[in-house]
Amino acid sequence: MPQFLNTADAGFETAFTALLGMKREDSPDVDVTVAGIIADVRARGDAAVIDLTAKFDRLELTPETLAFSAEEMAAEITRVSPEDRAALELAADRIRAYHSRQMPEDAEWQDASGATLGWRWTPVSAAGLYVPGGLASYPSSVLMNAIPAKVAGVERLVIACPTPGGAVNPLVLLAAQLAGVDKVYRNGTATIQPVDKITGPGNAFVAAAKRRVFGKVGIDMIAGPSEILVIADAGGDPDWIALDLLSQAEHDQSAQAILVTPDAVLARAVTEAVERQLQVLERREIAGASWRDFGAVIVTRDLDEAAALSNRVAPEHLELCVADAEALSRKITHAGAIFLGHWTPEAIGDYVGGPNHVLPTARSARFSSGLSVLDFVKRTTIARMTPEALAAIGPAAERLAQSESLQAHGLSVRARLDRLNG
Amino acid sequence: MPQFLNTADAGFETAFTALLGMKREDSPDVDVTVAGIIADVRARGDAAVIDLTAKFDRLELTPETLAFSAEEMAAEITRVSPEDRAALELAADRIRAYHSRQMPEDAEWQDASGATLGWRWTPVSAAGLYVPGGLASYPSSVLMNAIPAKVAGVERLVIACPTPGGAVNPLVLLAAQLAGVDKVYRNGTATIQPVDKITGPGNAFVAAAKRRVFGKVGIDMIAGPSEILVIADAGGDPDWIALDLLSQAEHDQSAQAILVTPDAVLARAVTEAVERQLQVLERREIAGASWRDFGAVIVTRDLDEAAALSNRVAPEHLELCVADAEALSRKITHAGAIFLGHWTPEAIGDYVGGPNHVLPTARSARFSSGLSVLDFVKRTTIARMTPEALAAIGPAAERLAQSESLQAHGLSVRARLDRLNG
Repeated sequence: MPQFLNTADAGFETAFTALLGMKREDSPDVDVTVAGIIADVRARGDAAVIDLTAKFDRLELTPETLAFSAEEMAAEITRVSPEDRAALELAADRIRAYHSRQMPEDAEWQDASGATLGWRWTPVSAAGLYVPGGLASYPSSVLMNAIPAKVAGVERLVIACPTPGGAVNPLVLLAAQLAGVDKVYRNGTATIQPVDKITGPGNAFVAAAKRRVFGKVGIDMIAGPSEILVIADAGGDPDWIALDLLSQAEHDQSAQAILVTPDAVLARAVTEAVERQLQVLERREIAGASWRDFGAVIVTRDLDEAAALSNRVAPEHLELCVADAEALSRKITHAGAIFLGHWTPEAIGDYVGGPNHVLPTARSARFSSGLSVLDFVKRTTIARMTPEALAAIGPAAERLAQSESLQAHGLSVRARLDRLNG
Repeated sequence: MPQFLNTADAGFETAFTALLGMKREDSPDVDVTVAGIIADVRARGDAAVIDLTAKFDRLELTPETLAFSAEEMAAEITRVSPEDRAALELAADRIRAYHSRQMPEDAEWQDASGATLGWRWTPVSAAGLYVPGGLASYPSSVLMNAIPAKVAGVERLVIACPTPGGAVNPLVLLAAQLAGVDKVYRNGTATIQPVDKITGPGNAFVAAAKRRVFGKVGIDMIAGPSEILVIADAGGDPDWIALDLLSQAEHDQSAQAILVTPDAVLARAVTEAVERQLQVLERREIAGASWRDFGAVIVTRDLDEAAALSNRVAPEHLELCVADAEALSRKITHAGAIFLGHWTPEAIGDYVGGPNHVLPTARSARFSSGLSVLDFVKRTTIARMTPEALAAIGPAAERLAQSESLQAHGLSVRARLDRLNG
């Protein structure tokens, strides 16, 4: 059974703080292994990748078969059913439409001193997207990572997707094609040109590898187990809410699903509905373990208190199954994504809503955002002084340089001011 | 002497690639020490901080004297000269004006299906800024870190600034006051409420500590030694350019200053001017070592080639000391900050230009940006389905969920669709 808390109980604050501090990440210390693999690939290049693929993926490759050829791609993609293709195309179109609005704008202006100031955005030149092989090989994640990169204007976008034992998910290849990916590799390698940014989900080994290369290249966030928090009022449908909670719980036994409601009757009804659904769910072992170990049902005094608790959790996904979802959403200060109203199950956001499904986990919505076009562009600041502008603000720069004992800084300004003065 | 390269020489590509790959970071492996300190502070809180401050800063503190009191702040600040205060105020005003334009906008729209989509930006609630004590205690860095945070709307902004031996830089305290910082501590501590984001420069120990807490809280970039690349044509003033190069070289013996020019005569004149200036510069030992070990002068065929080489370097600071700086700037794809024209020494950007001086180093301008208001806000995505919108796009979500074997995802959509269908 999940935890049942009531904000009116004496022990609530202690129990809630413990819930916030709960370690859910099942991350074995794989850093040493990963460091060895990176060193091996740096030293031996393709040969190391081929050896490691034989070992981990039970697959014999050559430098020529590391990447899928255009013919292999096409052949695999013909296996996709028309219905699956249509669904994936609808998802790709909607994700592209949403992310196209995220492209930030350049700015340039003149200030009172006559100086021209501003900034310009430019895309990352090359990006690499890791797509897990095997069980969690999700075509939706390919769209969510690749489309923002393409919208940003990334020139070269490649995917590394292991194919354990040679098994390929044709929907993943179709998603890559729809998103405009340039090349799909069966593994990272030295014959692949280096990229500037790496994104995409993965297990503890992938996370350790991303941490290790961070700085040499950019990375996206290190994603933890999925989370949902549902705030519901008496009008919430217990069955719908139960399925929404389970749709995160089924991802991973470390996932976390939390219901917060001022309605104790609904709280009980949802709990019963979860138990009922768990009996017939295919992934009931995973979802059941997540619900039992990390699930929570919290009864609050009112919706304001529910919003305040949610802000302390800073959930990855937040559903507002309440009569006035818009009003409640205005009280939310920390959340990766908000789903408003009874008709917006979180699963819509995983596939076809439009917003990205790569979102901050483990309370990191307090300081970070989901994946977006901004992850694939960077800003260059612009400054241009005129002689008059330099005369106006240069002396202050010179003075501050002196106060920081940076003489050459001051002299570089002074040399120009002296020219102006004579 | 720095390296002299000419793109017309046979060995150029090899030499330039070696220049790009040069390890400049003098980072001893301090990770073990830092891990011990973090564990100690986690376990013993204030007591550990007080012991460590006694050890490293030779300063005896109590929980009461960890923070500067309002009276101490005011007393220290009276030591600032009116001229220094005026310069700092001008800098603060200009930095605030520039960053105020960076606040991103919320968006919300309805699409053809009737779904409401969008995003909202909210500030990080609490941020901590580290300011080095001792030699490199720069009031300008306080402004550059604190003002974007305040513009973003960060509610609680605190500074940790060690005061070795009790030494305080009153300009740092005045900068904190001008920027609206809430509290200045002589060191991090357990009596300080936790923050959500930590920014600010520091040595190898600070960098290791930031890497270690990354994920628990947000951090800004890990900054490496400073860099400048100057592209100049025949119209460049050798003395000005020499001082601009030295203004980065004087920061750190691992700093890097590079001149790229199609004019071999200018290249020689700048080199001679650097040698001349080095004889009289206060920080000539640091600047001289940087110029000797990491400096480079590259003669190119033309300005286009210069821009292309600069893009491969992706420099932190780029000066365009050429006749048509605007045209040349349009060919720049990777740089932290561009300074256009002869009248814009990089030092202006360090203090009073307006743009931030915290910029990506070590070629990371390929994938990252300087510090900005965006570092202190995060985006929450918004989605609201109507029954009609769900009917239109829900079936595609259900289908994709099935293809990914995520049954509860599909059922959460299906349960709602069934209600619609009666």
